[in-house]
Amino acid sequence: MTTLTSRRHGGRNARRELRAAAPSEDQRAIHPGMSGGQYKPLSQAEIERIHETALQALEEIGLADAPESGIAYMTGVGAILGDDGRLRFPRQVVEAALEKACKSITLYGRDPKYDLQLNGTRVHYGTAGAAVSMVDVAGRSYRDSTVQDLHDAARICEELDNIHFVQRPMVCRDIADNREMDLNTIYATCSGTKKHIGTSFTEPGFVDDALKMLHMIAGGEEAWRARPFLANTNCFVVPPMRFATESCEVMERCILGGMPVLLLSACMAGATAPSTIAGAVVQSTAECLAGLVYVNAVTPGHPAIFGTWPFGLDLRTGAMTGGSGEQALLSAACAQMHQFYGLPGGAPAGMTDAKLPDMQAGWEQMCSNVTSALAGVNMVYEAAGMHASLLGFCHESLILGDDLIGQAMRCLRGIEVDDTTLALDQIREVCIGGPGHYLGTGETLSRMQKDFVYPSLGDRTSPKEWDEKGKLDLIETATARKEEILSQRSKAAFDPELDNALRTAFNIHLPRQ
Amino acid sequence: MTTLTSRRHGGRNARRELRAAAPSEDQRAIHPGMSGGQYKPLSQAEIERIHETALQALEEIGLADAPESGIAYMTGVGAILGDDGRLRFPRQVVEAALEKACKSITLYGRDPKYDLQLNGTRVHYGTAGAAVSMVDVAGRSYRDSTVQDLHDAARICEELDNIHFVQRPMVCRDIADNREMDLNTIYATCSGTKKHIGTSFTEPGFVDDALKMLHMIAGGEEAWRARPFLANTNCFVVPPMRFATESCEVMERCILGGMPVLLLSACMAGATAPSTIAGAVVQSTAECLAGLVYVNAVTPGHPAIFGTWPFGLDLRTGAMTGGSGEQALLSAACAQMHQFYGLPGGAPAGMTDAKLPDMQAGWEQMCSNVTSALAGVNMVYEAAGMHASLLGFCHESLILGDDLIGQAMRCLRGIEVDDTTLALDQIREVCIGGPGHYLGTGETLSRMQKDFVYPSLGDRTSPKEWDEKGKLDLIETATARKEEILSQRSKAAFDPELDNALRTAFNIHLPRQ
Repeated sequence: MTTLTSRRHGGRNARRELRAAAPSEDQRAIHPGMSGGQYKPLSQAEIERIHETALQALEEIGLADAPESGIAYMTGVGAILGDDGRLRFPRQVVEAALEKACKSITLYGRDPKYDLQLNGTRVHYGTAGAAVSMVDVAGRSYRDSTVQDLHDAARICEELDNIHFVQRPMVCRDIADNREMDLNTIYATCSGTKKHIGTSFTEPGFVDDALKMLHMIAGGEEAWRARPFLANTNCFVVPPMRFATESCEVMERCILGGMPVLLLSACMAGATAPSTIAGAVVQSTAECLAGLVYVNAVTPGHPAIFGTWPFGLDLRTGAMTGGSGEQALLSAACAQMHQFYGLPGGAPAGMTDAKLPDMQAGWEQMCSNVTSALAGVNMVYEAAGMHASLLGFCHESLILGDDLIGQAMRCLRGIEVDDTTLALDQIREVCIGGPGHYLGTGETLSRMQKDFVYPSLGDRTSPKEWDEKGKLDLIETATARKEEILSQRSKAAFDPELDNALRTAFNIHLPRQ
Repeated sequence: MTTLTSRRHGGRNARRELRAAAPSEDQRAIHPGMSGGQYKPLSQAEIERIHETALQALEEIGLADAPESGIAYMTGVGAILGDDGRLRFPRQVVEAALEKACKSITLYGRDPKYDLQLNGTRVHYGTAGAAVSMVDVAGRSYRDSTVQDLHDAARICEELDNIHFVQRPMVCRDIADNREMDLNTIYATCSGTKKHIGTSFTEPGFVDDALKMLHMIAGGEEAWRARPFLANTNCFVVPPMRFATESCEVMERCILGGMPVLLLSACMAGATAPSTIAGAVVQSTAECLAGLVYVNAVTPGHPAIFGTWPFGLDLRTGAMTGGSGEQALLSAACAQMHQFYGLPGGAPAGMTDAKLPDMQAGWEQMCSNVTSALAGVNMVYEAAGMHASLLGFCHESLILGDDLIGQAMRCLRGIEVDDTTLALDQIREVCIGGPGHYLGTGETLSRMQKDFVYPSLGDRTSPKEWDEKGKLDLIETATARKEEILSQRSKAAFDPELDNALRTAFNIHLPRQ
């Protein structure tokens, strides 16, 4: 017994020492870009049927409302404009675009350590959306979101390991002028994080100014074009099967300006797409294929993310819903279509219909976040912070979402099976004349960091410890972390010279920090 | 526009009418026993390596501490007792047991509508555990669990569609005598629900009394043996690789009494099993295979659930943890082993380390619940209500867990792909000369119930509605639902004559209701 006890203590002390040191980068259990694909809700035959149906929809139904310029680009590669104004896509036109399309996209960060490589089933998580409200967790209330909220969200994202990109999650409602809002969105986000950014533009005429700002931030047009660190989230369709005329014009300018594009088809299954999961995926796939033809007609091989974003709908009310099992299936099925085409793709997950970061928020956010990863979505958009069916954004929830995504990523990493992990020798040594437990074995200690994802804020204390520590409330813990992050100077703040230049060139609403 | 508007309203009114009627049973989107298997964390080669390693462990390491009776049974079918007291299992002994083993198990409810059929990848969710505390959500505190708490949990489970069986989740700490506790556990559970029950027995000597009570409830031994509605949760091993001598004796008596057995190997990866997922699954599989040899040596073909229950461990503290991504992988991998053997199996999921039903509880419970289902675990144990790393049970969380599991089950149901769901004709009709939306199409309306899982307590209101309705708190909503359920007479209450007989034969602690 003495031996067992001292061995036990030996193990405990060794573990104590190990945990005192934070894991080095190569010891981290999870990292951006791990590969999914272990979860396949669709069979290969079903994927092919969806593909064939999408091709048929493009050939027979086509899309209405393309701008003149788009009609010129797309008829130039073989699309056919009908008397009904709809642009139809013969099969070979789509196939030619698929051939030309960019198959592996690098999304650059302003810091190269944040670069993302999109291909295969590599998974990355990030924010997204256009919430109009901020969730005030202390006051249990919703208020208009502001440019400061957006900047703060970016700063928080900069600190969260499991948020890999920062697509603008909310609208700056304190900026009435759309041009200024678009430009300030870039300023507020880029000055908060050096991770890859996504945003959209209200009008085509705003793109040139945006590019001017991006060139300044990058240090010139050449530097920008070498490492474009911002992508255009482009809602190029108004489902079902209509081009969004003005957004298409925005897209053309972005492509010419060297900006990667997210081809975003945001439909609602049951309202702007069929209510069936298969049907919504067909339509969204068809629309994104049309977008792919468009992009590759403008600039062959231009980086474009295949953005099938079918959302769920609560048919009882006709309102969008983001937290359902149906949503998880929609996004997972999309991932399989992306992989079928060999195209980098994105889909929404991690949204909740809950108004506050409560238990419902937790289960809804995890459901689609873990299944999307296992299905191999390259870009999981809306993955954290998004409440009230996309209407509200919450900083505390964003911070907790980082923990949540960490566990989803642990699932994504999967199971290593080799002689060492199968552990037959270890079992033998422990059982036969050994200590009868594994707490202090060399294998256990050496894997303590690199095999396990430990929560940052998630609580694993016993009820007794929890009681002794004052019954910490999860939301209060997240609020404290938020305040800690925001009390420090932004790590992505522009240097004063650049900042002055930007403030001279543009009407920057965010106060000097 | 007038046409569009009136069509829209037509759709809305039609939807309003439809939702007023509760869905009939065949219109429900989800049901017990749907098949998983879409998620495969292990490849076929990896599964076979785990199997081979488990066989090697049984052959070379074997298990210590079998009772005399067990040694007789198992050596009788070819197991070899070593000089070191360990029982080793040549490969062909395991293979013979696999051949004889029951491949499809019916777990009976006291009401046949609750019968569960365990085979293939059919998934069922239920409670389990041996929590020692109840979570008081209003007081944010933990207190000893009682027989009344257990009875109330059973009554709540009776009302929850997505809780398919009721394994005793907590210990009656107000009953000091172990024999009385075991018997009262049966009484309190069976008088609360007619769903299939699981429980354990502290000592072999208690089984006869338990059978006596079960015969009375069933209406005689023959009726009990025809439809045994209670299974013995049997922790037949003390990992690593030791039989739990007394539990084995319990098991023998249960088998002879016609009671299905859950062969439960509950190890902790990093403490009582290797810290690697593959290694923990190897050991747990080996132990359950030994149990399978045992059961089939006593009574060939006796229903035994392959209960690989490897739990996670937080190596920083050495404490059990149930809410991690590692846990989700452990249980999903186990499902693949069950399927490899063609044996009905169970694994734990849905546990949380959170002390209260907060956001962490939601994400942790969903993570393993959805992945276990997609991996095809036949019996998902601990699926709802289980907090503080198995130390606490919470009625409100159980109720919310039913909602959570509903969404996991929607994922499990998957995606139907056929001409109707691919919806090409519908897309054509809506887009070309149609209303431009799908809200009122016949397909949308006809699928409104049977394709969608609507939350019971989960909230999908807009922030505005939520505000107008008084900002309902999720936990308060669950408490109200709990009180509503418990204010009614138990649907599984024994008739007065039987109840009197039981109270005469046994010291029943639960007051007459």
